[in-house]
Amino acid sequence: PMKKEKNNSPPSGTRDFLPRELHRRRQAAGILAGRFERHGFLPVETPALERIQTLTGVYGDEGDKLIFKILPRGQQAELNPQPDLALRYDLTVPAVRALAEHDLLQKGFRRYQIGPVWRAERAARGRFREFWQCDVDLYNTPTPLAEAETVAALEGGLRDLGMRELVISVNTRGILRKLCDLFKISEAQRKAVLIALDKLDKFPIPSVRREIAAIPCSGARLLADALHPEFAAELLDKDTLDGPERDELAEITEAVAAAASRDLEISVNPLLARGLDYYTGFIFEFHTLGGSTRAIAAGGRYDNLAAEVAGSDCRICGGSIGLERVLDELEVQDSISALDPPADDVVHLTLFSPEMLVATEQLARELRDLGLKVYVSRGGKIGDQFKAAERAGHRRCLIYGPDEEEKAVVTLKDLETGAQSEVSISDLAGLVEILKGI
Amino acid sequence: PMKKEKNNSPPSGTRDFLPRELHRRRQAAGILAGRFERHGFLPVETPALERIQTLTGVYGDEGDKLIFKILPRGQQAELNPQPDLALRYDLTVPAVRALAEHDLLQKGFRRYQIGPVWRAERAARGRFREFWQCDVDLYNTPTPLAEAETVAALEGGLRDLGMRELVISVNTRGILRKLCDLFKISEAQRKAVLIALDKLDKFPIPSVRREIAAIPCSGARLLADALHPEFAAELLDKDTLDGPERDELAEITEAVAAAASRDLEISVNPLLARGLDYYTGFIFEFHTLGGSTRAIAAGGRYDNLAAEVAGSDCRICGGSIGLERVLDELEVQDSISALDPPADDVVHLTLFSPEMLVATEQLARELRDLGLKVYVSRGGKIGDQFKAAERAGHRRCLIYGPDEEEKAVVTLKDLETGAQSEVSISDLAGLVEILKGI
Repeated sequence: PMKKEKNNSPPSGTRDFLPRELHRRRQAAGILAGRFERHGFLPVETPALERIQTLTGVYGDEGDKLIFKILPRGQQAELNPQPDLALRYDLTVPAVRALAEHDLLQKGFRRYQIGPVWRAERAARGRFREFWQCDVDLYNTPTPLAEAETVAALEGGLRDLGMRELVISVNTRGILRKLCDLFKISEAQRKAVLIALDKLDKFPIPSVRREIAAIPCSGARLLADALHPEFAAELLDKDTLDGPERDELAEITEAVAAAASRDLEISVNPLLARGLDYYTGFIFEFHTLGGSTRAIAAGGRYDNLAAEVAGSDCRICGGSIGLERVLDELEVQDSISALDPPADDVVHLTLFSPEMLVATEQLARELRDLGLKVYVSRGGKIGDQFKAAERAGHRRCLIYGPDEEEKAVVTLKDLETGAQSEVSISDLAGLVEILKGI
Repeated sequence: PMKKEKNNSPPSGTRDFLPRELHRRRQAAGILAGRFERHGFLPVETPALERIQTLTGVYGDEGDKLIFKILPRGQQAELNPQPDLALRYDLTVPAVRALAEHDLLQKGFRRYQIGPVWRAERAARGRFREFWQCDVDLYNTPTPLAEAETVAALEGGLRDLGMRELVISVNTRGILRKLCDLFKISEAQRKAVLIALDKLDKFPIPSVRREIAAIPCSGARLLADALHPEFAAELLDKDTLDGPERDELAEITEAVAAAASRDLEISVNPLLARGLDYYTGFIFEFHTLGGSTRAIAAGGRYDNLAAEVAGSDCRICGGSIGLERVLDELEVQDSISALDPPADDVVHLTLFSPEMLVATEQLARELRDLGLKVYVSRGGKIGDQFKAAERAGHRRCLIYGPDEEEKAVVTLKDLETGAQSEVSISDLAGLVEILKGI
């Protein structure tokens, strides 16, 4: 048969997951789901495909450019050459659409979802085009209950995964508005200022200062001059920000502290500005002390999104854990052992010869019926079969040849110790007990 | 805020899953994963996106038309306006690419994958554009071991889900070739004949007969004349098909019978012709007696696909369960109760008043730390909170107002019996015991 040189790598920015890594990801997703359910969140899943209208205009101009769109198909392409479908960009917006459709926005519903999203980013180390988000959201739930419950669920999930030294930075859009008012930033330039402030945790202060100073607004230049390492602390120490905005942030922070674990370090940061357009109130980011500068979880309140996306008013607060970022940090923190796969619970049933296949398959069936994990070997020399078993991490081999068949036994070999013994197969349950007991 | 009339339904052919249905799907997927692992299969996951070259030409002309392609983006679109990415059409082909990339095709690897695939079909009742497949495949594993292990894993999975009265139809491409030889069907027309024969389980014989008679080949007309309800049985009763092809099918069938449960009805059907182009040897379909005419699981051997897709020779046999079809049949068979969600293990912690929020959140945190599932109510009139709890299926409510706080108790109300009692919160572990015991 032909042999072609093929590029068999997955597309740029996507990954294949082999069993070991997959086990870790599944364990992590299962742990988060269990945590979210413990907080009264219920799972909802939406399709990978959404109508383009549902997604465009919600994530800002930069976001719009990163949406993967689907090529129109067949007849429909002739009628209307505009793309009508796209891959979801996050889980938040599709969930709002779905809950509106099922009339669940007004009922205090709390939803979680763990799954992939797609963004046409330039792929880079640690930045993927297909990656997983782990969302919780509380619909139509008053402040500051919703904020406290969002943070508690996410922090609980992070801790259950083994994350330590967690810090949450909190702020509100109200504080940012007040700050812009103080510096007399014009309405037209506020978005640019927030986008620049959002870079404070990723870039050195001078570079952010330059970006803000370049914004055509005299207030922006004043703000740039004021930006130094102690600026946030000074804003809090002095009464600069006092007023209803600061009271609101204090009230939310108190509720968050009550719901969070005592180990969570809460850092009020009046310069924290989440990038996404749709936040309206509380915003937050989780980091680890000494960890990456990128947030491992983040979120906030978005009270206008449901009207925009679904034509239905609903106040919403929620947040999301970035699965890849957390798994990366766990690797750095070297605390991934709890997520490692179980190694050696598969029994390697050797295939003595092709003539023994039917008898071997019958034995495999009976052992599986009794709950054992059984891998039937591909056959070949028995020594090669043992080697294949070792490579696969199967510690126990069973040998069932014509001699064994006649004596109604099976030979059990422990590859770790080399110990070998004959076990009767007239009592299969007993054999299973022995195999489970090793 | 604005209110727009919005279409909030998911795109045609896709679905939103709410908690109850999702629970059922997850339970089913978990049961299948457990079964596949018991048979020595390991999980592999590939991305939703594949390069278009990986997918085109593999599924036949009809398949090619149903592949969702991604619109080229940004700069890349100017350089090359041809789409480069597509959504996976099945799990089989991407898995071959991924295992070739990770050098696992030659090592007797056995893989399972459970996940969504996308096809631009015309959406209809029971036919979706995003649906789930549950695959098992054995790579580089000799016949008939691979066939036996494929069928055993799929049958075991179907039985674990509660499927009863299972029938498997089996055949080989060799038998179909022999049949075409007998009727002197020209090479050029064989594909059309197989496509028509594939419809025998879905359409009445006269309509299939007409389709075959219309194929421009004298042998096809002879075959059309021979098609009557007893034709398959007659082919087996007489020695018409005798020879190496029939011996091969008999050998495979014997191994399959050894690995399958004794309850599986095996029907040798020399007219069974799976649609997909890539099968080369054994082919099979699972149905239920009296169930839908569409197969609930199917598969076969495809020894040329790895060369075509990945430029690497590898003999492969595998199959797939259609998750939606099985869940549909289970609904018909009325045996879904094992997949129903647990109802009332969430404790509804009422919010007595906004002033009690901080104390309530602290209590919630402590109860969750002790393993309880706790939903903190949105507040409002206490009677409305009870009603919300009932609607959500939460049977037990906790009330924690200023009186309770002073007395260091919490009031526990069982919504089913109406019984109400005060429980000390000085011993939280005791409270949790009581709550778990109800």
